[in-house]
Amino acid sequence: MKWVPNRKSHLTIQEQIVEWIKARIERGDWTVGTKLPTQRQLATQFHVNRSTVQLALDELKADGLLESKMGSGVFVANHSWNVLLNRSQPNWKQHIESSIYKPNYHTIQLINEYEQYDHIIRLGTGELSPELLPTDQIEQSLKEISLDAKSIGYSPPKGNERLRNIICEYVKKRGIQTEPENILIVSGALQALQLIAMGLLEEGSIVFHEQPSYLSSVHPFQSAGMRMISVTRNANLSDHLRVLKRKRQSLFYTVPTLHNPTGDSLSVKEKEQLYHVCNELQIPIIEDDVYHELLFETAPPAIKSFDTSGQVLYIGSVSKTLSPGLRIGWVIAPSPVIARLADIKMQTDYGSSAFSQEIVAHWISTGLYEKHLTNLREQLKKRAAFVERILEQQFSKMATWKRSEGGFYIWLRFNQPIVNKSLFLNLLKQNVLINPGYIYDSSDLHHIRLSYAYASLEGLKLGLDRLLKVIGSS
Amino acid sequence: MKWVPNRKSHLTIQEQIVEWIKARIERGDWTVGTKLPTQRQLATQFHVNRSTVQLALDELKADGLLESKMGSGVFVANHSWNVLLNRSQPNWKQHIESSIYKPNYHTIQLINEYEQYDHIIRLGTGELSPELLPTDQIEQSLKEISLDAKSIGYSPPKGNERLRNIICEYVKKRGIQTEPENILIVSGALQALQLIAMGLLEEGSIVFHEQPSYLSSVHPFQSAGMRMISVTRNANLSDHLRVLKRKRQSLFYTVPTLHNPTGDSLSVKEKEQLYHVCNELQIPIIEDDVYHELLFETAPPAIKSFDTSGQVLYIGSVSKTLSPGLRIGWVIAPSPVIARLADIKMQTDYGSSAFSQEIVAHWISTGLYEKHLTNLREQLKKRAAFVERILEQQFSKMATWKRSEGGFYIWLRFNQPIVNKSLFLNLLKQNVLINPGYIYDSSDLHHIRLSYAYASLEGLKLGLDRLLKVIGSS
Repeated sequence: MKWVPNRKSHLTIQEQIVEWIKARIERGDWTVGTKLPTQRQLATQFHVNRSTVQLALDELKADGLLESKMGSGVFVANHSWNVLLNRSQPNWKQHIESSIYKPNYHTIQLINEYEQYDHIIRLGTGELSPELLPTDQIEQSLKEISLDAKSIGYSPPKGNERLRNIICEYVKKRGIQTEPENILIVSGALQALQLIAMGLLEEGSIVFHEQPSYLSSVHPFQSAGMRMISVTRNANLSDHLRVLKRKRQSLFYTVPTLHNPTGDSLSVKEKEQLYHVCNELQIPIIEDDVYHELLFETAPPAIKSFDTSGQVLYIGSVSKTLSPGLRIGWVIAPSPVIARLADIKMQTDYGSSAFSQEIVAHWISTGLYEKHLTNLREQLKKRAAFVERILEQQFSKMATWKRSEGGFYIWLRFNQPIVNKSLFLNLLKQNVLINPGYIYDSSDLHHIRLSYAYASLEGLKLGLDRLLKVIGSS
Repeated sequence: MKWVPNRKSHLTIQEQIVEWIKARIERGDWTVGTKLPTQRQLATQFHVNRSTVQLALDELKADGLLESKMGSGVFVANHSWNVLLNRSQPNWKQHIESSIYKPNYHTIQLINEYEQYDHIIRLGTGELSPELLPTDQIEQSLKEISLDAKSIGYSPPKGNERLRNIICEYVKKRGIQTEPENILIVSGALQALQLIAMGLLEEGSIVFHEQPSYLSSVHPFQSAGMRMISVTRNANLSDHLRVLKRKRQSLFYTVPTLHNPTGDSLSVKEKEQLYHVCNELQIPIIEDDVYHELLFETAPPAIKSFDTSGQVLYIGSVSKTLSPGLRIGWVIAPSPVIARLADIKMQTDYGSSAFSQEIVAHWISTGLYEKHLTNLREQLKKRAAFVERILEQQFSKMATWKRSEGGFYIWLRFNQPIVNKSLFLNLLKQNVLINPGYIYDSSDLHHIRLSYAYASLEGLKLGLDRLLKVIGSS
């Protein structure tokens, strides 16, 4: 459990806090330069007044162990180490800064951090609301699952064979004919992108994507040294790609159905065109299809269904539809590609959770999944209508949007370029978290990706009210 | 389900197989250069005679769609594509070969592949036997787990908070004092290494490790461009490291308790020495401690317990003790390091399976885990004695070994350098899979990592008999 002061100790509360912080520094839990939690967070953890925390921190500052940096918090001081132990320690800050992987953007780090707190209203979260998750039914289904010893050992490189068979059947509805051998189970779509980046592209390859794009908010390709180029789908796409590609290896990333963040979907004809352009130029396509089950109308076939060249790497997942906590998705691709990605996955994490795979196999094969989806689409439709009503009443003078066709998102465009970091931070002060357009396209200061899927209806109403107020006052 | 020919079709079985293979090539499932499954595997899948498969393949070869390569199998021919569709397809082979991540060694790919088949006797597998996994109890515990909606959403960046609290308590037995904030839940120890490679080291950093080492059999550091240097722990270690390190960033990877593959454990004094040498040179240590619960005698404290400089990154896991299918491990490290690794984990797979985390939390917190471990150690002890008896009776003239102190392994050393790839392959022909020493140290042709943990007692006996026979006949 987290440490709390002992009220029966012969030491005062303040003394105990001082000793505890010293111990953490001595142990190296808090190395030089570590930012301490805020006074408020510490007070909550210790069940004490903020003033007690402040006094303890002041004492440690006076001793030279901590230091304040204007506006950014309290840190373990550079000399704390000499003061306490007269010994050296590794320079973790330098290790981190010189290492390979890019950090998340600061805005996204803040989103990840604040999503943990219950008092935050999440207007942008791309995740089903706790109310929409079939928690009780999943709990019930745990009772129905029978395990055999083989299934809870390391899974085979491509994943649980039964699940791969079931997915083979499942994707027929998307017009996709495949075999279990062509399916790799992954820990969600993001891991699929990671494996593709490491296993199928040379450094300096080009990744084409739409503008805006989910890919701008994560770094699997950038961290592997790829160049990201955003393109617009129009009549000149072919010429455009040809010029940009030159002799480079490349691929085209697309979310053709219920695009993240815009919510747009391509027609069958547009999908065919995109496929043919890429086929002609031999540019493989990553079809990220994790939202299609949430289309309010029947979903048209996937790009993968036209594939007669092994050109499309298709990605599916249950994270947006059943439970993100399962961390289960899949890639469908030519055999050599699947073998390669499976080999890297074995070197990365030895496969996905066997338990999660069993649960997904159970849900899809028993029809529980389809039934749940039917209900879920109804719920999402109602939520979309609810938010659209508020938008019409309160935002129609300052912003435009398209009616949602499914999924989670409304891509709200403000007439003025007001969606900047300071709007994000001002809303955060009001306990409202948004996904600003600039995390999907760094030049975009007009959009917010509203999600009607996560917050409660009251939360959505309240959050949009506060948004309106913050905009009005700035 | 996997395709099988339809016996009621107007087409012959052979014609159907030809059409099916053509369809797979046309669809791009089997791109140019793809190696087909063996005739035996296809015959098993189709429930037909091998001769029928062979006739179908011959027909496709005559058409120019397939080609045989002497000794290595049947492949989709280079010109298959033109023959069928007169269209181009991406050159996946080139994509794979020029990409960033190293493939597994061929021996390890074969091990991963053949571990899937039930008829193989696995003499080297570093995994609990299905007999030793508490399958029924885990199934039972699934019925006792109650879920709340929050716990099946995306987990917070560092992992399920309850589980981190529980692990905090659990590691006290290892002498480790820490806080939930200093713990990151990962999908097994291998993922921890991956995250450390990407998040804490610059390209060209040096990773010191023991010789032989588990690290030689996986590539998280090599693929990130690190230099691997094996060192021997002796009186000169300090000077040795100092010379090799120069000005480079570096770290020291060690499995101090029940070392993989040798089974050795460091004494407390040796651990202290290693810590002090590395502390003096400011070389961080990765302490891979995934086997300590399997020591037959009480385990001495971890290196991490001496850590007063935030120098040790400690890794634990339930993969070797409870179920590898859970894919749950943890890293304990200074706060800035944990924050960094959590940030990368969020970019890599958005956290580990929430269900697996719930199961582990349940098992540790209820004491089920400790009870299971007590029983497991007894079982492993019996298995070790069983294998040691066979070794004494049959191998004592040609090999030496140390009595097992726990865990899974006996590091069997043959007097002659006979453990080469051809021994590995000859045993595979006899359906016996070994882990040869050369995957842990490429210059080693003397050792086999025997595991008494996986195969059944009959399997162990039979496998060792075949090993003896194959050695005798070569």
